Amino acid sequence: MPLLSALGGATWRLSGHLARHFSQTARRGERPGGEELSRLRLDDLAPTALSAGRLELLFGLSPCLLALRAARRRVARLLLQAGKSGVQGERAELLRAAEVRGIPVLRPRRQKLDALCRHQVHQGVCMEVSPLRPRPWTEAGEAKPGDDPQQLWLILEGLQDPRNLGAVLRSAYFLGVDKVITSRRNSCLLTPVVSKASAGAMEVMDVFFTDHLAGLLQAKTQQGWLVAGTVGCPRPEIPGSSEIPITSCLEFLWDQPTLLVLGNEGSGLSPEVQASCQLLLSILPGRQLPPGLESLNVSVAAGILLHSICSQRKGFPEEKKRGQHL
Amino acid sequence: MPLLSALGGATWRLSGHLARHFSQTARRGERPGGEELSRLRLDDLAPTALSAGRLELLFGLSPCLLALRAARRRVARLLLQAGKSGVQGERAELLRAAEVRGIPVLRPRRQKLDALCRHQVHQGVCMEVSPLRPRPWTEAGEAKPGDDPQQLWLILEGLQDPRNLGAVLRSAYFLGVDKVITSRRNSCLLTPVVSKASAGAMEVMDVFFTDHLAGLLQAKTQQGWLVAGTVGCPRPEIPGSSEIPITSCLEFLWDQPTLLVLGNEGSGLSPEVQASCQLLLSILPGRQLPPGLESLNVSVAAGILLHSICSQRKGFPEEKKRGQHL
Repeated sequence: MPLLSALGGATWRLSGHLARHFSQTARRGERPGGEELSRLRLDDLAPTALSAGRLELLFGLSPCLLALRAARRRVARLLLQAGKSGVQGERAELLRAAEVRGIPVLRPRRQKLDALCRHQVHQGVCMEVSPLRPRPWTEAGEAKPGDDPQQLWLILEGLQDPRNLGAVLRSAYFLGVDKVITSRRNSCLLTPVVSKASAGAMEVMDVFFTDHLAGLLQAKTQQGWLVAGTVGCPRPEIPGSSEIPITSCLEFLWDQPTLLVLGNEGSGLSPEVQASCQLLLSILPGRQLPPGLESLNVSVAAGILLHSICSQRKGFPEEKKRGQHL
Repeated sequence: MPLLSALGGATWRLSGHLARHFSQTARRGERPGGEELSRLRLDDLAPTALSAGRLELLFGLSPCLLALRAARRRVARLLLQAGKSGVQGERAELLRAAEVRGIPVLRPRRQKLDALCRHQVHQGVCMEVSPLRPRPWTEAGEAKPGDDPQQLWLILEGLQDPRNLGAVLRSAYFLGVDKVITSRRNSCLLTPVVSKASAGAMEVMDVFFTDHLAGLLQAKTQQGWLVAGTVGCPRPEIPGSSEIPITSCLEFLWDQPTLLVLGNEGSGLSPEVQASCQLLLSILPGRQLPPGLESLNVSVAAGILLHSICSQRKGFPEEKKRGQHL
């Protein structure tokens, strides 16, 4: 069932089988989008958008709302759960945005949405949308070091878990990272699961990709950027890695444009990428750790490192402080 | 299929149906644990431990290894994937520990383990174990404020996502939190999914529970502890909450024994618990945020807050610093 294998990590796309199904349906003169909503079938998803190619099912209130606001995706249909808490607040905004853009709205029952989303938390809202793809990093634009000494780009090498990637994007957006670049090789795609885990931050962030990460790092080094890798534990087994200084994130001073490079959940940075770093940032543990527990979850580590850096931004925090320590 | 519904978040226990199955098998004189390993069936899990009651399936290298080291669980059988990379390193330690404790070792094929673990990442290792349950917090022991001004207990109110809970436990262990106490009401159990997400930290940490969180906070306040809640955004709609000072975690000074109280993923702290806090810690954003993006993932927020506090520990970091900032 192509739809049901859609949301686990890879992007769902209309398969040849489904395309043939819709084609046959059309030849029979049926209108698969026109039946009663209570009879909505999984196979009938998005026939109107079929001719335009690939679609996927975005789910969750915040991803759908931010996708509509950002207007980066083509939206075929909005699916709002029937009978769910009226049309207040965000739901009303969803309906308004759909009306303005002429997006058809369906009202399937909860069970239908549960099945479509493989029982992930959809909060009563789904949208059939075109996939969101990262752009090549050469479109990221150049920030000249002289312009702003506190540029921060986050580079992700081979992050594979969509929930980790989503949480990292959410943190990067919240804490003020300027751009995110992923290695195309071995990295998780920008799927609906990532968008949900990012609370929709994926819909509004600038995410780029590169096919040659080490080359990017070397080019930015030439331009005067600091390339800071990350390390859970020192890894003397990687040739050359022992020559790269390791700095606690507590001691890091952010005084030049910086690329922060995070590695894969299991294996960390590749030797080639690590060798392109000028220093390695670490988070020091608060106790003696047994083997197997010497590292943090990658999205937690990203949050701590980004917070350590971003809190040095001039003018940070931007929000008014209320109250103070007792 | 009780086994297959086991690992999604709730603890798997042998159902009446399975109990009858094993009972009938025994009456027929069959030895369900004695067949060829290539014929191991899902229904045949842990017959030897049936008489002792409830079991669950722990999975992943680190959870199993740390569970064996900690020796808190009863272990019925160790399941090591057949043909997987010999018996080096951690796998050799698993086998040694099983031999010392007289734990039977099975060698199922990968497909069997995949099915048992619902295709979660088991790394070729599973164990049938008794559940790990938190103890009542009254067994946590008293740390008198005069003894150590830098005690830190982490209090979790209603964390429901097992992966969030696991990542929080992993961070708490890594960063040096002394004890963790969960509210029994509405909180995720200490399931195998939590253990895996914690990289096994759940197996070695002290985790306690309470049925009356507000009462606990008030009692500790009376004993001279600081009770610090957490807040994503100020919530003036909660009566009395506007009177509680909000402090950026960057400005927090850790100079007395402290309880850090984290709330539920969706709704944060309950009004009753928030009203029992002496101050609220916040993580300030690095940019203007649209509605829906004003908060971080709870495990990321926990990591940042714990790191802000624990890095103030005297003698922190314990590890030798290598290198320094370029």
